Amino acid sequence: MSFFTIQWKKDGIEILDQRLLPAVERYITLKNPAQVVDAIKTLAIRGAPAIGVAAAMGAALGARHIRAGTTKEFLSDFDGIVSFIASARPTAKNLFWALDRMKRRAHGEIGGAGDIIVALEAEALAIYDEDIRTNEAIGRHGRDLVSDGDTVLTHCNAGALATAGYGTALGVIRAAVSSGKRIAVIAAETRPLLQGSRLTVWELMADGIDVTLITDGMAGYCFKEGLIDKVITGADRIAANGDTANKIGTYAVSVLAKEHRVPFYIAAPCSTIDTKTATGSGIPIEQRHPDEVRSFMGVQSAPPGVAVKNPAFDVTPAANIAGIITERGVIRQPYTKNIPMIVGDDD
Amino acid sequence: MSFFTIQWKKDGIEILDQRLLPAVERYITLKNPAQVVDAIKTLAIRGAPAIGVAAAMGAALGARHIRAGTTKEFLSDFDGIVSFIASARPTAKNLFWALDRMKRRAHGEIGGAGDIIVALEAEALAIYDEDIRTNEAIGRHGRDLVSDGDTVLTHCNAGALATAGYGTALGVIRAAVSSGKRIAVIAAETRPLLQGSRLTVWELMADGIDVTLITDGMAGYCFKEGLIDKVITGADRIAANGDTANKIGTYAVSVLAKEHRVPFYIAAPCSTIDTKTATGSGIPIEQRHPDEVRSFMGVQSAPPGVAVKNPAFDVTPAANIAGIITERGVIRQPYTKNIPMIVGDDD
Repeated sequence: MSFFTIQWKKDGIEILDQRLLPAVERYITLKNPAQVVDAIKTLAIRGAPAIGVAAAMGAALGARHIRAGTTKEFLSDFDGIVSFIASARPTAKNLFWALDRMKRRAHGEIGGAGDIIVALEAEALAIYDEDIRTNEAIGRHGRDLVSDGDTVLTHCNAGALATAGYGTALGVIRAAVSSGKRIAVIAAETRPLLQGSRLTVWELMADGIDVTLITDGMAGYCFKEGLIDKVITGADRIAANGDTANKIGTYAVSVLAKEHRVPFYIAAPCSTIDTKTATGSGIPIEQRHPDEVRSFMGVQSAPPGVAVKNPAFDVTPAANIAGIITERGVIRQPYTKNIPMIVGDDD
Repeated sequence: MSFFTIQWKKDGIEILDQRLLPAVERYITLKNPAQVVDAIKTLAIRGAPAIGVAAAMGAALGARHIRAGTTKEFLSDFDGIVSFIASARPTAKNLFWALDRMKRRAHGEIGGAGDIIVALEAEALAIYDEDIRTNEAIGRHGRDLVSDGDTVLTHCNAGALATAGYGTALGVIRAAVSSGKRIAVIAAETRPLLQGSRLTVWELMADGIDVTLITDGMAGYCFKEGLIDKVITGADRIAANGDTANKIGTYAVSVLAKEHRVPFYIAAPCSTIDTKTATGSGIPIEQRHPDEVRSFMGVQSAPPGVAVKNPAFDVTPAANIAGIITERGVIRQPYTKNIPMIVGDDD
């Protein structure tokens, strides 16, 4: 791959600034938790797994700068940093999962602040490394679900750019292509922030994978014309019953897939599964600034001041999901029974 | 209303240039059929009924400039102008309906070229006047379908800007509001050309009607949250069985409406009904330039050269349509039986 999403560097966290893609490929370095939170809030880095990695690295970075007299004070300050980073966005489970893991590592470490700082860096890098291996495993489990010649619709970006690398939904595509299958992708542009046209198209073209861009409203036409064989999207949070929060617009795609009897799959690491939230109605949905809907890249597209709804996610009911592709295998319905068999309670 | 969509003037056809809305409210004058065709192709004027009016006026304008020796030559030249204007866009039935009517008037006129020119101007103005009265009648028939307190989702723009005035879908809203009902509108922005955010929001705000803007992908969320009581859209062509071509994205909305048991209505004049096309599969769907999808109001939003689909319309099956609101009444299922009772064969 000719780019990277996020890397741990001596002087901070280097990320590809996804706000500028596809026009500009620029890397920026985040030097403290405040910059990490800002990067997550403004979607310089986005995608549930990538947010988890960024949060873990941000916590490790923050730990370096704590000036505390005792280990207890150090841990108290660290917990404050973790809470601050956790406030960045509300929906993606991976953010909280990664931060919980960092907290457990900090509190479980024997030794002083210096030892904890070293342990936290190791933990953040482990989360990063595991994410790539997790995505590769998702790809291996998922590639058998797509057939040679399939066209796969995806929504938003669940690719290398949404993870430490390789991708979840696009990881499945990459694995299928690597195994010799001819796969074409239809990418929905995903308004308001156009992660489909700006990011998914960009990374698939970089990899030489066949991709066709549509607006979100064209998915229905494509289903009706019989152009779509499978749907695969990522996820931001999966409830215990399989209800799945993903980028706004995903729910409508799932209803169309059901109408046209096209299998609809979620591809996500087990860290996206939230066994403590019973159903989708318990998943908090982030509401973002109205100007995202009123404009794009500074160009006003609606009368100023018009009332707007701007939910960043919607929830696809478990009944519409043919399978959840994880690093431990494909979870099938009934999810309430089968999710615990795969993930246990150790989320 | 503080604006007009189209007017017949001594020196040509004055239209509000809808490509520039909502930022700029500029009127331009079309002086010959070539300018009319260009205005229709580039969506300076759009909306099936408005296209019909513009085409009729364009034909009347073209007739003025014919230099022919005999009435027969005059009519032959006129038929050429009509064919040229008919080539502007393929889907909207009203374009062909209005031009057929102009041709019939020209060929039915007794007298020479001068008489025919006068008759054609009168016919174009009649089509214009009738369109406004037709929309007001659609409003009267449709207003009883919405209840006090309803929130109505609409897609694209089927308003005053899509007609000679008042609107079809938005005509129903206007009539309901005028009759004292409190109606809120949710307008889907309607990518790629944003007729929802640029036009529907603009004209409803101008009239002081409650409107909230969403992206196309948010309709599913709004249905799921129970925010939508009715759907009303316009139409570009209605087949004999009720299958309806309308702006791309309408089909997906109809599937969501069915899923959520929300009534989905079409509002359109009888001139949109094409009894000679048996089903939706016979309706030609215009495919437009890929750059409309690759960019957002002139700002590139996808990598250059990415493959694109850009169908301008999709077809909503009759089964998803609770009623077709016309100037002669609301047509209910079964459409194959009930459409001829309303429109006869005189389309």
